[in-house]
Parts: sequence; structure tokens; C-alpha cells
Amino acid sequence: MYLDELTKDISKYLDKEVTLHGWIRNHRPQKTFGFIDFSDGTKNKHMQIVYDDKITDFDSIVKFNIGSTIEVVGTLVKSEGKGQDYEVKASKITLLGDATNEYPLQPKRHSYEYLRTIATLRPRSNVFQAVFRVRSVAAFAIHSYFQERGYVYVNTPLITANDGEGAGEMFQVTTLPIEKLNGKVDYSKDFFSKKASLTVTGQLEGETFAHAFSKIYTFGPTFRAENSHTPYHASEFWMIEPEIAFCDLDKLMDIEEDMLKYVISYVLDHCKDEMEFLDKFVEKGLIEKLTKVVNSKFTRVTHEEVINILQKADIKWEYEPKQGEDIAKEHEKYITEYFNGPVFIHTWPKDIKAFYMKQNADGKTVAAVDLEVPGSGELMGGSQREEDYGKLTRRIEELGMDVSSYDWYTDLRKYGTCVHSGFGMGFERLLLYITGMENIRDVIPYPRTPGNLEF
Amino acid sequence: MYLDELTKDISKYLDKEVTLHGWIRNHRPQKTFGFIDFSDGTKNKHMQIVYDDKITDFDSIVKFNIGSTIEVVGTLVKSEGKGQDYEVKASKITLLGDATNEYPLQPKRHSYEYLRTIATLRPRSNVFQAVFRVRSVAAFAIHSYFQERGYVYVNTPLITANDGEGAGEMFQVTTLPIEKLNGKVDYSKDFFSKKASLTVTGQLEGETFAHAFSKIYTFGPTFRAENSHTPYHASEFWMIEPEIAFCDLDKLMDIEEDMLKYVISYVLDHCKDEMEFLDKFVEKGLIEKLTKVVNSKFTRVTHEEVINILQKADIKWEYEPKQGEDIAKEHEKYITEYFNGPVFIHTWPKDIKAFYMKQNADGKTVAAVDLEVPGSGELMGGSQREEDYGKLTRRIEELGMDVSSYDWYTDLRKYGTCVHSGFGMGFERLLLYITGMENIRDVIPYPRTPGNLEF
Repeated sequence: MYLDELTKDISKYLDKEVTLHGWIRNHRPQKTFGFIDFSDGTKNKHMQIVYDDKITDFDSIVKFNIGSTIEVVGTLVKSEGKGQDYEVKASKITLLGDATNEYPLQPKRHSYEYLRTIATLRPRSNVFQAVFRVRSVAAFAIHSYFQERGYVYVNTPLITANDGEGAGEMFQVTTLPIEKLNGKVDYSKDFFSKKASLTVTGQLEGETFAHAFSKIYTFGPTFRAENSHTPYHASEFWMIEPEIAFCDLDKLMDIEEDMLKYVISYVLDHCKDEMEFLDKFVEKGLIEKLTKVVNSKFTRVTHEEVINILQKADIKWEYEPKQGEDIAKEHEKYITEYFNGPVFIHTWPKDIKAFYMKQNADGKTVAAVDLEVPGSGELMGGSQREEDYGKLTRRIEELGMDVSSYDWYTDLRKYGTCVHSGFGMGFERLLLYITGMENIRDVIPYPRTPGNLEF
Repeated sequence: MYLDELTKDISKYLDKEVTLHGWIRNHRPQKTFGFIDFSDGTKNKHMQIVYDDKITDFDSIVKFNIGSTIEVVGTLVKSEGKGQDYEVKASKITLLGDATNEYPLQPKRHSYEYLRTIATLRPRSNVFQAVFRVRSVAAFAIHSYFQERGYVYVNTPLITANDGEGAGEMFQVTTLPIEKLNGKVDYSKDFFSKKASLTVTGQLEGETFAHAFSKIYTFGPTFRAENSHTPYHASEFWMIEPEIAFCDLDKLMDIEEDMLKYVISYVLDHCKDEMEFLDKFVEKGLIEKLTKVVNSKFTRVTHEEVINILQKADIKWEYEPKQGEDIAKEHEKYITEYFNGPVFIHTWPKDIKAFYMKQNADGKTVAAVDLEVPGSGELMGGSQREEDYGKLTRRIEELGMDVSSYDWYTDLRKYGTCVHSGFGMGFERLLLYITGMENIRDVIPYPRTPGNLEF
């Protein structure tokens, strides 16, 4: 039996014999008895196994290594000790798989840097047991939110001939024998008979489906070939990109706020043990921070207002805030503290935002919105999309991009165009916010960053 | 309001004024009135909009093109016509976005081949409205099945330095300037400082997490750079790969059977309109076929028994069935017909299966299992994994593979090894089976196959 089955209805098994399979997370053998800190990973809280010297093979059992796999037969009883409500009094403990003395994951506090070097084992550590279960539950919360509301989940392609927003640096995908090329590349001989890359966004394809189903979302991997060595950037990460027809910028902000609150509440409800652990050992006050967000009303201000606030602030900025320009990390931090909670910054200068955003009547701004959250900065970026064919194609030309390569996208505006909006949320950014972890490498099972491609 | 909100509680809106936004799927204007077949894509069934010549701009409305976007204000009433229970008597219809006369998706039966050429528009057609909603709901059913049972969802990496099973052909991923290379490739200058590829499976990484959480599943994209031009092969597709500790082959078959029945039942329950449409227009008897599977007990036979049955059959085979060898499409078909339902073929000849499969005591077979379903052939492939370090590494050596490059994987057998099993299911194969579609290109939003990389 797995621990999650056992603990789901513990009264059913109390004072009864149970058989468990799992791993020794810690082991404190004494002269005439011993305690095993046992887990099969299905619950964050471990089960204490107690044995005494009347058990068969007592002399072998006391030598069982940490990390070993065991089968335990015993009686589930109320615990008289501190630290747990229940324990299993073992009548039989069998070694199923040894772990050598060199087992690299000993029960002590290891640095995250060290744990990254033993990436195949780190999910067995307490903190990563919590982090990766939260990752799993948060992913399901996102699916649940959109599915319950009638959104269609769309798997947009990862290998692409488009360059997405024309912004991100891309990985090339090829089957050409690159070790034998000599200055001449004939892409008609490549797998797709043309140059192929890994996508930086599924938005544009997502929009085509929003024009068919009204409410859609993507949730899949995305890639950036950027030589960034920060705690926030990975080369491979997961994105959520909803796209909604008949939805303007105001309604989009409603959806973003509602979704974020739903996902946080869901994780707090379904990962109680994990969140308590993270609150205790990773970010003090984490649960309070998240609960406050769920109960708050997000502020909505224009980019122009934000710059005014920043300029009036009695602070020596590293980057001077200026109208018409982007804001820096230090500004994001200040503004969430100023409003004491999440802040939607909307109505951005046209020139620093992407070509597909809805051009406002003032000729200077676009209907874009970034969501800034306390402690983590930008969590979502969205916009109303330009639904006017003429304005959209003129903007593409203005920016010196090739209109013809976007014809399948701009044509949406010729065949039943509509007001529509969407946003993107980096899943790992959300996880950093929810778990309190500080490095994106520590919320991804096998992170990919420049120069790092292990396992 | 979207149609799914309206129809969720239709009595609430009956005889009341409603405002809808969506597209004209068909239009039958008459002299003094007209009918619009209207949809916003949130429901498979369209809404009939009725208007007469008392409406403002009647003369313009009758000219509205198919594919155009409109806003409809009107009263929801019971319909006296055939084909629908309700309709909207319009008091106002406003054109939001025109579709030109050349709109490529006219309301007639187009071939799937033609629809593939207008891939950005085909999700608006009736059949793809059904297919892609089923895809979305089936994906959620899979997540629900595993999450309800305590499995941890793991996002295994897509960019990898491993060659997976040592089998599939892989795409190379690079940021090297391949147009400027001349016979020498210095991988230390590539993005990851080594040769990188797109993964063919997340299984091996999945196993590392099964040793931490016991029950895990992956659900993500996978790639094959194979030059296959069949209706069953795509270069980019989604796979589900569960991996379960303390689970042997028998229990694995239980899980596979249980999951498949759950997912099919879920889709039949949640996509009634879509499945009725597919049953009527795509595969006659589809719902009956699937209902039968849900209510059947899957047969379990060994590979050896299957070959015996095939050899006894009074059939002239294209490929003669032989002990110790693989079975062909024609054999799969025969065997599911023979047993009149899904069949688990287990205990396969070692030499035709992958290195990581559990070696049986006979020295000749491995604990592998393929699930064959009527009409579609192989749907899942799984096995108990070899948990013995010596046997596993010897097998890798026997096959002439490089043991050292798998050390992170084989080491799992040194650090608390355990009996464990897993399977892989191609999501699109499942969708072909559930929707009755026959070409994998028609269940993927933007399919990638050799020479095809559009949109």
C-alpha cells in the first residue's frame, strides 16, 4: 500500500496490519530498538517505523543504510512520541534494495547548488519533494481553471518556421549532417525542406484557434537561446498562453486576476503539508503572502501613472524612470510595495511593445498589461490584440518586418476578425512565486541553461 | 455571453433578451426573413438566429457573408422549426468583422486534404470543432485520472544529450552558425557546450522521479526525425509516460486498462455532441465501439500464445508469424478480432525489445506488454523495468551501447532500487482511436511531418 492511500482514511487502518514499500529517509538504530524515517514519496509527511530487538534479523536491520528500499509489515498505531500522530510498529522489515554508504543524499541540509549536481536524486530530498509536488498540483490547477470554464486546450507546435514575436533568440532544429557541411547549406535537403527552429511562443497559433473556439489556452514548453545567466532565465521552460475572443483589456485583467487567485487557492488547499514545509524552511511568511494575494483586489494603473509615481519617489534609482520607456526590476519592486499588493500596469508606450498589440486612439500607446507581484516582479504579460487588418500590417511594415511571412496570421483579420486578448505566464515564474524558491533551476526537474545539459 | 454559458442553464435565459458574439457558419437569407447558423465555438451545436424584414438594416444583413463576425441582440425562444430546440429571434444584428467572398471555408463538405492546406481556418469547420475539443477534453481526462490517484506530473526535458532508447532518430538542436561551418564542428562552442537533440522519450528521467515519488506521469511533446510518410507517424507528437514504483507487470496492465476506460468514459460523458457528430459523419458505430471497450475485460496473452494462434489461423499472411519475432499490423488486427476486444500481449522475446526491460528467469523473454485495440493496433507499450544493476549493465554492454553514458540511470539500481514499471501512450494514437479519424495530421493542430512545416 502507498502512504497516500493509508493516510486518506487512516481510521480504517488503525490498529490493523499494513504492508508498506518505500525508502529509508533516515535511520536511528539504538541498542535494543530503532526508528526509521520512512517514505514512498506519495505524501510529504514521512511515516515513522518503530522496531525492537524481538524482530527477526534485528542485527541486520540496524545496519540498513539510508536510501535503501524496504518492505515493512507492521501495525499502524497512534504514536506516543512527538513529531507524528501515527507510527508503524514493525513485525517484519525486508531489504528490497540497498543503498551504498556513498549514497550522496544524506539526511542533512545540502545546498541547492550541490543538489543540482545530483539532479537524479534531489527529488528525494524534503525540499524537492515539496517543490515538485507543488509543480504538479499547480499544473493541474491551471488545467482545471480553464477546462471548468470551457476553454479548449491547444497544443501549439514546438518546431516552427516562424520567428514568433520577432524577438527571442531561437534554437535551430536540423537533421543536416552539420559535421560535414562546408559553407553551403541546402535547406531543401533538411528534414522539413526549410529552416526550422524551436518556438518562442504559441500565441500566434493560439489566436487562430481563439477565432474558432473563442476561449482557448496553451500550456506547453517554450525555448529561448539566450545567453542569460540569471536566476530567472532557463533555455527551456513551460508557458501558459490563453487567448480569448470577444474580450478586451479590462476583461483580460479580470481573467488574469481570477486565474491567479484560483491557482494559488488550489495549491494552498491541496498541498497543505508541502506549503507548511516551504513556509518553514524556504520563505518565512509564504502562506501569509499568498493568502493575502488571494484576498486582495489587484491595483490597475497606467504606465504613465507608474512613471509619475516613480519620479516622485524619494529614491536614488539606478535607472532613472522616464515616460515612454520600460521600467526596471527596482521599479517593479517599488510599485508593488507602494500599492501593497499585485499591480496591473496597463496602457504602455507603443514603441517598446510588440507589433500585434492593439493600438490605442492616442496613437502613442497600446492596450498592453503586465502583472507585477510583490517579491517576484512581472508574472504575466498580456494585451488586447490588434484586430484591424490595415493597422496590423502597417505596424509590421513600420517595424521593418516581412509582412508576407505573417499572412496566415494577418489573414485572421480578413476572415471574421474580432476583438480579442490574451496573456502569457511563465509557469516557472509562477512556481518561484508560489514555492518561495529563488532560482528557476530549482523548480525544473532537469533545467537547461547555457552550457548545462545533464541527464 | 458565450453559448456555453447560455446553454448551461438555458431556462434562465428563455424568453429573455440575450447578446451573443460569434461567427456566421451558414446564412440562408429569404425575401422577408433569414436564418443564420451561428456559433462562437464554445459549443458543438450551433444556435439558429432568425430575423425578419422589420429589423434595422435588413437589406445589409441579408448580404452578410459566411465567416463574418456579428453581434446579435435578441430573445431566446423555443424553436418551432426542426433541427434545434431553441433559437434567437434577433432584434439587432451588427457586423463586427467581415469575411470576404473568397473566404476559403464554405459550408460544404471539404476533403481533409484541402482542410490541411487552410490549417488556420480548419478548426472552424464542424469536424475539427469536434476533434479539437475532444483532444482538449481527453488531455484533461488523462491529467484528472493520474492526479486523482496521487501521481506527480513531471515535465521531463525536451532538449537532451541522451539518445533515449538508443532507437529513434533524433533532431539536432544547435545555435552554431551552420551556414558558416566548414567541416569542423566545435561543440564546446554550441549553446550547451555539447551536442544536443530533441528527446524521443521522457521515460528514463521519469524513472528517476518514480524512485522519489513512487507514482509519476509525464505528458508532453516528443520528437522523431524519421522519414515516415504514413497516416500514423508525425515528427512532433505528445506522449503520456507513467512510471510506477512497487508495481509489476500484472499491476501495470491493471493500470493501463483502468486508465483507458476512464479516459474514454470521460470523453463520452463530457463530449456528447462531439461524439455524436463523429459517430454520424466520421466513423459509424464509434460510440458503440468505445462503450464496448469500457465494459469489456481486456484479454491477456503471451507473445508465444499469440504466435501459436496466428500460425493456426487459416489465413495467407503477408508476413509469416514466427516465434521470437515481432508481429505485423495484419497480426495485430487479427488478434483483436480473434479476442473481440482489446488484447494485452505480454512476455516478449528479449531480442526484439529494449535494453531496460525486466529479464525473465527463462533467459529468453522480458516482462514487456503491448496493448492492441480493435481498429487501431498498438495503443500502449510498457514493461517492468530491470531493477538489477548487474543484469541491466550487462544487457547494455551486450547491445554494444556505452554503459558510461547511462550511469545516472543505472545508478538508480545502486541507490535503493525497486521493482517498477511504466508504459508509454502516444496521445495522437489515442485520439485517432477515440475520434475515428484516420490520419494523425487530422488530430494535431499544426502537424509536422517530413517536408511539412507550415504556420
